[in-house]
Amino acid sequence: MPRKSSTSMKDVATLAGVSLGTVSNVVNSPDLVSPATRDRVETAIAKLGWVPNESARQLRAGRSRVISMVVMDIGNPFFTDVLRGVEDWVQGRGYHVQASNSAARPERESEQLRVLEQQRVGGILWAPVSGPSDRAETLRRRGIPVVIVDRAGDGTGYCSVSVDDVEGGRLATSHLLDLGHTSIALVGGPGTLHQVRDRRLGAEIARGQHGSSASLLVVSTDSQEAAAGVAAADQLVGLPDAERPTAVFAMNDLLAIGLLQGFVTHGLRVPEDVALIGYDDISFAASAAVPLSSVRQPREALGRRGAELLFEEMEAADHDLPHEHQGVRFTPELVVRRSTSPR
Amino acid sequence: MPRKSSTSMKDVATLAGVSLGTVSNVVNSPDLVSPATRDRVETAIAKLGWVPNESARQLRAGRSRVISMVVMDIGNPFFTDVLRGVEDWVQGRGYHVQASNSAARPERESEQLRVLEQQRVGGILWAPVSGPSDRAETLRRRGIPVVIVDRAGDGTGYCSVSVDDVEGGRLATSHLLDLGHTSIALVGGPGTLHQVRDRRLGAEIARGQHGSSASLLVVSTDSQEAAAGVAAADQLVGLPDAERPTAVFAMNDLLAIGLLQGFVTHGLRVPEDVALIGYDDISFAASAAVPLSSVRQPREALGRRGAELLFEEMEAADHDLPHEHQGVRFTPELVVRRSTSPR
Repeated sequence: MPRKSSTSMKDVATLAGVSLGTVSNVVNSPDLVSPATRDRVETAIAKLGWVPNESARQLRAGRSRVISMVVMDIGNPFFTDVLRGVEDWVQGRGYHVQASNSAARPERESEQLRVLEQQRVGGILWAPVSGPSDRAETLRRRGIPVVIVDRAGDGTGYCSVSVDDVEGGRLATSHLLDLGHTSIALVGGPGTLHQVRDRRLGAEIARGQHGSSASLLVVSTDSQEAAAGVAAADQLVGLPDAERPTAVFAMNDLLAIGLLQGFVTHGLRVPEDVALIGYDDISFAASAAVPLSSVRQPREALGRRGAELLFEEMEAADHDLPHEHQGVRFTPELVVRRSTSPR
Repeated sequence: MPRKSSTSMKDVATLAGVSLGTVSNVVNSPDLVSPATRDRVETAIAKLGWVPNESARQLRAGRSRVISMVVMDIGNPFFTDVLRGVEDWVQGRGYHVQASNSAARPERESEQLRVLEQQRVGGILWAPVSGPSDRAETLRRRGIPVVIVDRAGDGTGYCSVSVDDVEGGRLATSHLLDLGHTSIALVGGPGTLHQVRDRRLGAEIARGQHGSSASLLVVSTDSQEAAAGVAAADQLVGLPDAERPTAVFAMNDLLAIGLLQGFVTHGLRVPEDVALIGYDDISFAASAAVPLSSVRQPREALGRRGAELLFEEMEAADHDLPHEHQGVRFTPELVVRRSTSPR
């Protein structure tokens, strides 16, 4: 990792308005420092890009043989499949895997990362709610490698494993346009999730490529859980017939399953009255009431590759060797099932 | 918790054939002791029922504000729903929840409990593969309360939250007998899982109560995952028509979903050719290709109540107050859907 050697601990102390000893405590015994002071010092450290002059090996002494994964929704089989990929790879290497659920709440995620730091875990696989934060930077500075999962790490200076969400959004929408749909709802949210933004962008790209004037109706949900899909179905069914989209692209399979249940409740048939495609291709997509078309993400491979990158970085740090960050990006696949049969 | 004050550290040292210092190290700094010696001392401690003469409060000093849950299959929504119940309760009480997956392997489970001990977590919710083990006893001796989840703690000296599995097996089988089935397959396994044994027992009780001579065909699977259900369907379809059961009771919904997929692949209709009932009533049961009848377990309530019991025990220990163990047992409910419509 790049180190700016021109910055010294003294610069940090001056900027934060504290003594050298306080800066040292923030780095080595953060629990001795009041939260307010700690925040001030950490802000100064982040601003100056200062890296303590200790070897990565020393920083890593005393780490436990635990790999932690922080996921956004432990109830979504997408994440438990990724987790099983991680376990698969870690298994037999003398490490244990633990999972934390941020429930897509930034403040909870931040607290969980702080707890993992105190636990001195060996490394972290992190599916972030928004972007890599100061908290992740702190972890790394204390010798805990972090690999970003399900989001590209471009320019953030982390290793990452992700799946091309723009391409996934393009694939799903292109499929619906091929079937002749001219009014498509894009259901998912919140819009702050990069996955949602990227998949919506892919939908627009598909429309452009088709030279289509199809309308793309953005239906923003407050979560990516099945209940939000049921609510979105209510909303769509409430539209006047002429305005109701004839196809729905749900940003994950849980939403799609909720939409399917909602449509059935209102007497709408899938795909006859409304075509429906999900995202992730969790195992329950194939076994749903109407087998769901979906965009398959290589979930277990994502976990295995993420764990592999994390171990490479941990080993480099253990031996004070240089480490080059990598971003591994998988390509998703379209899976067509009954829920988008031709009209 | 009951303490046998008549046993001393010296008795433990004598039985294990080690010095007093070694016994002390096993209790306070186990990492300093070789695994073989540690095992010998721990066996002696367990045999004599010795409890170190320290207050529970002292033993609990320095515990982290983390609650850990050890589950048998992180990919089974039953467990993630229980986990969300735990998070629900813990949320706002200043604690964090982490999950470990034993994947139903005893040796992995044992190692994970050892890691949690080293992490000095505040308390553990544990869905055990078999019974409470020496490892759990060690945790408790070191001041980490353990609550057993999804299994009655009768006579083990732990708090527990469980659902009556014998009653659940009886409900499911009774329902199939009411529909006139006289040949029923009981699909699940391995038979070492107490859930499987109890549900099979419930099936036999139902048969007795009905004064029925129905045949109960035990199909033992090597796991409770969907793939094992697909394999069980292959096995059942391979039977001569006259011997093939007309109804299947799957010991969880993942198996039932696998069975459903397997039957459909072989051209068998559910429920016309074979009736099918699952267990747990995970959300995907209602949204399956043929909506699945199931036995509903109060999953989130199980998690919330388990967390509540754990906090009670933690607080008693923090204040050196006595604690009385409780076993909370929920009653499951039959949920009838299309997969068992009358023939």
